[in-house]
Amino acid sequence: MTDTTDMTERAPRPPGHGPGDLGGLPSGEGYEAAEILASARLCVDPELRAAIESLPGSMRRIALYHFGWEHADGTPAAGNAGKAIRPALVLAAVRALGGDPLSAVRAAAAVELTHNFTLLHDDVMDRDATRRHRPTAWTVFGDADAILAGDTLQALAQRLLAEDPHPGAPAAAARLATCVVELCAGQHADCALEDRAPDEVSLAECLAMAEAKTGALLGCACAIGAVYAGAGADTAEALDGFGRQAGLAFQLIDDVIGIWGDPARTGKPARADLAARKKSLPVVAALASGTPEGVELARLYGRETAEGAERDLERMARVVERAGGRDWAQLHAADRMSRALGELARAVPDPERAGGLLALAEFVTRRAH
Amino acid sequence: MTDTTDMTERAPRPPGHGPGDLGGLPSGEGYEAAEILASARLCVDPELRAAIESLPGSMRRIALYHFGWEHADGTPAAGNAGKAIRPALVLAAVRALGGDPLSAVRAAAAVELTHNFTLLHDDVMDRDATRRHRPTAWTVFGDADAILAGDTLQALAQRLLAEDPHPGAPAAAARLATCVVELCAGQHADCALEDRAPDEVSLAECLAMAEAKTGALLGCACAIGAVYAGAGADTAEALDGFGRQAGLAFQLIDDVIGIWGDPARTGKPARADLAARKKSLPVVAALASGTPEGVELARLYGRETAEGAERDLERMARVVERAGGRDWAQLHAADRMSRALGELARAVPDPERAGGLLALAEFVTRRAH
Repeated sequence: MTDTTDMTERAPRPPGHGPGDLGGLPSGEGYEAAEILASARLCVDPELRAAIESLPGSMRRIALYHFGWEHADGTPAAGNAGKAIRPALVLAAVRALGGDPLSAVRAAAAVELTHNFTLLHDDVMDRDATRRHRPTAWTVFGDADAILAGDTLQALAQRLLAEDPHPGAPAAAARLATCVVELCAGQHADCALEDRAPDEVSLAECLAMAEAKTGALLGCACAIGAVYAGAGADTAEALDGFGRQAGLAFQLIDDVIGIWGDPARTGKPARADLAARKKSLPVVAALASGTPEGVELARLYGRETAEGAERDLERMARVVERAGGRDWAQLHAADRMSRALGELARAVPDPERAGGLLALAEFVTRRAH
Repeated sequence: MTDTTDMTERAPRPPGHGPGDLGGLPSGEGYEAAEILASARLCVDPELRAAIESLPGSMRRIALYHFGWEHADGTPAAGNAGKAIRPALVLAAVRALGGDPLSAVRAAAAVELTHNFTLLHDDVMDRDATRRHRPTAWTVFGDADAILAGDTLQALAQRLLAEDPHPGAPAAAARLATCVVELCAGQHADCALEDRAPDEVSLAECLAMAEAKTGALLGCACAIGAVYAGAGADTAEALDGFGRQAGLAFQLIDDVIGIWGDPARTGKPARADLAARKKSLPVVAALASGTPEGVELARLYGRETAEGAERDLERMARVVERAGGRDWAQLHAADRMSRALGELARAVPDPERAGGLLALAEFVTRRAH
């Protein structure tokens, strides 16, 4: 579960060993996650670029910087626009349901623009200074311009769908807008939870927040693919559920990695989430465990850690583990992945056709940082 | 031109006296601006309320506060959601072109939601503490929640259009999204201009900024009305031009009022824009006049005004006036209004049918504060 190898290093694994495993996954070339992601990036990038090139200069400059296509001074950059997981889910869902993925490239770009709008705004609110190994847009252009660039990308996403003659475009636009509302409520809940005392935060609230913040857009991407494939409402709902549950499994595993991940593999300092006193899911599960270790953790979480007090953080990690936080997160991730697979089987009964979506779900729940 | 009576106080004026006048306006009951606005508010409010009631609690609370329908503590408020000029323009444009205004109520609500999304975000960026005589949302809920509520209203606007079965809805959604991009570029330009020295700002830049910030959404509202009436692209463009030019005329007059308006009527301190060293259009025209007074104004604008230094502000106002800033703004407003009327005549040749739009254009260019 804490496998953090990069997609380029990953070797095929035999099926059936442990939580998060997607057993029965056809491992043919066509279903390899890295290839699916690279192909999505190739399809969607020209559409994304064209949309961003259409912006007025001030907004274009910030967007090009954010996507990693320009340096802050406006010179071209090699680009690191992220892994394109959401557009890949749109295209894979279309393919899984027998539609033409090329008909949904604009919709896939719209989903990616929406994701990037939320990143721009979340970074302003969370005061995060680094994104994709570069200074965040607000640190370079200021808060106002980062907010405006985010607003612009949300508008651009909706414009792509409004101008798309595909019969599924209006339903996709409605789904995307509804999803943005959920993402905003999730971000609000995240900020609100971080402001509360550790013992005032329930596990149910944290799971609901993670579903809104992380699951909603992955689910929406899959559902939009269903809409573009001409599938019915039931199939779209099932694929939405697949993406949501896989998203929650991803978040649980991401939180485990945030405490126990190997810094050499994650690229982050060890126990970073504990140092930041983040109310991540394993921590909240430990706090809510009713064990003596849960009580001890609440006490430890209320104290500041001196700079470099590595031993304190190690002790915290042990306490979370002994309170059952790690096991709970891993089992719960496996449970969510199992629900995801159930939803997928409901939407796409043929496992051969479902292979691309399966590969992506496995990728997101085992991804590196 | 500096008439700032409230719409409830205004008495009918005879036509033909001075710039901004709309001569030949049929003054029958159906074309009285106050009535048109009240009727638009009545039509659109239930749609707006229903959309906002559909939001998750956290976002709903902020939106209800922003629209004046709830106090900060969540108790009901009498409501002051603004004058509904933009939705009234949508509905009046539909009517002027022979369509059914009731078919465009959702679109009108979408335009109003978009306007309010930009108000929420602009207030955060500009650190404005008061809006519609109440503390702004960010002062009550914090920056993050005000940003999220703005994002939510943009999404809600697009959702209303995406879910509207009217055949004009996708084209309206595309226009609205394109307009948001222009509004964002306009707000960026506004912030950037305020950061520059007074003599580094050109009149052309200020006019372009005002067109993007103020004219674009008024134009878009009219064009969306044309789209909903089933009019062709030429008519929609002409009505867009009408709204834009009327919007610029409004901004010019608003800037005149910001310097020479009567505090008893505007509800703002006298010469507020000069005290804030705002680069309003009459000021920039004076600075760019090439007159000795322009040079003097640049010097005065570079100095801080001591608290309550009423005499300094009066002197500045006189200097702007002697440099020709006031006359220029009034003549330019009349010119813009004349262009607006030209566009309107192109879109709606029958003056009787054009009456509602004319009344609204006259209202916005003479409105109180």
